Amino acid sequence: MYKSTLKHALRKSSTVATVNSLSNFEAGSRIFSLIQPTGAVHLGNYLGALKNWKDILKNVPEGTECLFGTADLHSLTQTPKAETLHENRYGAIAAIIASGVDPKKCTLFHQSSVPEHAELYWIFTCITSIGALNRMTQWKLKLLVSDASDIFDEKVMGQTKAGVLQYPVLQAADILIYNATHVPVGEDQSQHLELTRSIAQTFNHTYGKYFTLPRTILTPTKKILALRNPAKKMSKSDADQSSSIYLNDDAATIARKFKKAVTDSIQGPVTFDPETRPGVANIVSIISAIQDKSVEETVSDLSWVQNHKQLKDYVTEVVVEEFKDKSDLYNRLINDKAYIDEICSNGKEQAREIASKNLLEVKQLVGLA
Amino acid sequence: MYKSTLKHALRKSSTVATVNSLSNFEAGSRIFSLIQPTGAVHLGNYLGALKNWKDILKNVPEGTECLFGTADLHSLTQTPKAETLHENRYGAIAAIIASGVDPKKCTLFHQSSVPEHAELYWIFTCITSIGALNRMTQWKLKLLVSDASDIFDEKVMGQTKAGVLQYPVLQAADILIYNATHVPVGEDQSQHLELTRSIAQTFNHTYGKYFTLPRTILTPTKKILALRNPAKKMSKSDADQSSSIYLNDDAATIARKFKKAVTDSIQGPVTFDPETRPGVANIVSIISAIQDKSVEETVSDLSWVQNHKQLKDYVTEVVVEEFKDKSDLYNRLINDKAYIDEICSNGKEQAREIASKNLLEVKQLVGLA
Repeated sequence: MYKSTLKHALRKSSTVATVNSLSNFEAGSRIFSLIQPTGAVHLGNYLGALKNWKDILKNVPEGTECLFGTADLHSLTQTPKAETLHENRYGAIAAIIASGVDPKKCTLFHQSSVPEHAELYWIFTCITSIGALNRMTQWKLKLLVSDASDIFDEKVMGQTKAGVLQYPVLQAADILIYNATHVPVGEDQSQHLELTRSIAQTFNHTYGKYFTLPRTILTPTKKILALRNPAKKMSKSDADQSSSIYLNDDAATIARKFKKAVTDSIQGPVTFDPETRPGVANIVSIISAIQDKSVEETVSDLSWVQNHKQLKDYVTEVVVEEFKDKSDLYNRLINDKAYIDEICSNGKEQAREIASKNLLEVKQLVGLA
Repeated sequence: MYKSTLKHALRKSSTVATVNSLSNFEAGSRIFSLIQPTGAVHLGNYLGALKNWKDILKNVPEGTECLFGTADLHSLTQTPKAETLHENRYGAIAAIIASGVDPKKCTLFHQSSVPEHAELYWIFTCITSIGALNRMTQWKLKLLVSDASDIFDEKVMGQTKAGVLQYPVLQAADILIYNATHVPVGEDQSQHLELTRSIAQTFNHTYGKYFTLPRTILTPTKKILALRNPAKKMSKSDADQSSSIYLNDDAATIARKFKKAVTDSIQGPVTFDPETRPGVANIVSIISAIQDKSVEETVSDLSWVQNHKQLKDYVTEVVVEEFKDKSDLYNRLINDKAYIDEICSNGKEQAREIASKNLLEVKQLVGLA
């Protein structure tokens, strides 16, 4: 049932464009996105989020406001060690900037530094039903329980922290506190963005029209898979670290990891067939995402490739070239925490200027001011 | 099972004292309590909360800090009209001061004016399981569903806002953001205070000892019942408004309401027997609470009473005397909103001085600073 709702919503123009066709934005658009600071940024994070942010900044017209940052409050749902989270917040900002997201052209900040997120979050918990949250599928994925399972199975309930269930309500507050007009999201987050729109509508209906319904910017990249096991996503927590390529891997490391990548024993030209040739398709996806081409174009470009070794050498070259300067910049930034602190402190001020004004207006609408 | 846990906790000295025996507090104690701004304050609110606050201020030794205010964020769980909530916030502060709670001797503020409550609330949602919240009974009372019901019945889930389930988590944040040492609560809230202690323990265990486990100050007053129907609590929302006596009722109104109070047809001396004589017992409770006496003393004091008319005349006299000055002061204050704003603005500054320092320390412990 959800799927058809989503399709319907997409048809209703909640989707606007892909990252590379943003030049016709209306003036005053505001784009918002956060990533969780979960540690070293890998190729999947880069192509799934950070490269899109960079491309958004490059493609939007003057006067478009962009807010990017770390979802450090959301990280708490996984109860990280304090030192780890503290370090990862720096790592995430360093990776964002290293990826080409110019802090002079956007507002870059930590979610937890703007108290208005949490304040709006409480207001939203009072208009969001438990039933709506139970229909979300992401928390089930995180708990490794089936989509059909109910948060309220006795067993699930004991092991589930309230924050895991409330996760998308805080996300809605993140987006709506800025009255963001557009949110770049991957497919796995589109259900949460639907909930954001639904919360905005409920608020507008209950207290008076205030929130813009944010629209989706579809991010073009297909999920990047684990090099050693293309049945699953590339992940920082993979036991086999040859599966993941990091922004700060050097050229030799990148070459070694692609050399060990699982492909298949099919001879002949490169094809894009995720079902039967997931390893090869993953490599095609990586090349096409970096080169901003469709997979069809990329397959056609690769007609000269005669074996897997040539394909692996080529993807290595492409990734090394893409990451070279970024890796250097990342390594410089991660050692200059004072600079990162300054960026985030400026970003916080800019973000709070919007957030505090909006929260005051929301408080007036609900009777708290 | 819960009951035995509670009893055990009480034995373990989580309870300290009644309101009237606070003079031996250790130095540096901090007492915290909020009331929901739900509109006109009635005799039940006054005896259940506000009179206790006044008595606490009177009885605690110098150096004890008291923070009191409105739980206006919690009010949102009932989706009040904005104008109503806005007005009720003023009414609550006016009633608190009129009841004898001197704003010079305590910190008086609105919960929503201190963002650190909501910020700590998110952190606590990440360490509190849905199962623990499902065991709370208050939300079930509010929804008028049975204690045995599960929030996760399909029907209950659809009609239940997340805020109703999360209510006690915000309460825990309210109390713990100040590291309060003592919280005066009525019996209906003692389960929530147990949860507060449990959240404090979980945090201390997970991130390092930080929070004081707040202790209960048992408030002496029995529940005040509806005058016209002593089977239920006195309530502002009673359809029969003769059931409730308000802080700003004039003497004639108070007399009229007690005249119409339901008692019984038993002749002879006054007794205190809530089961068989609930109406009379309720009047005895009211007199004993106002006069700071045990019900036994009050019954003995009332040995001269020969009929219900004498009893009703006497309780009228006692309540009119208790409310006379308070009612006048309330009516003056409610017309001086600038004064109330100034009190709350000062209170907010004082509260934030503690809350912002504590939140920063909490953020350092979890890795957000």
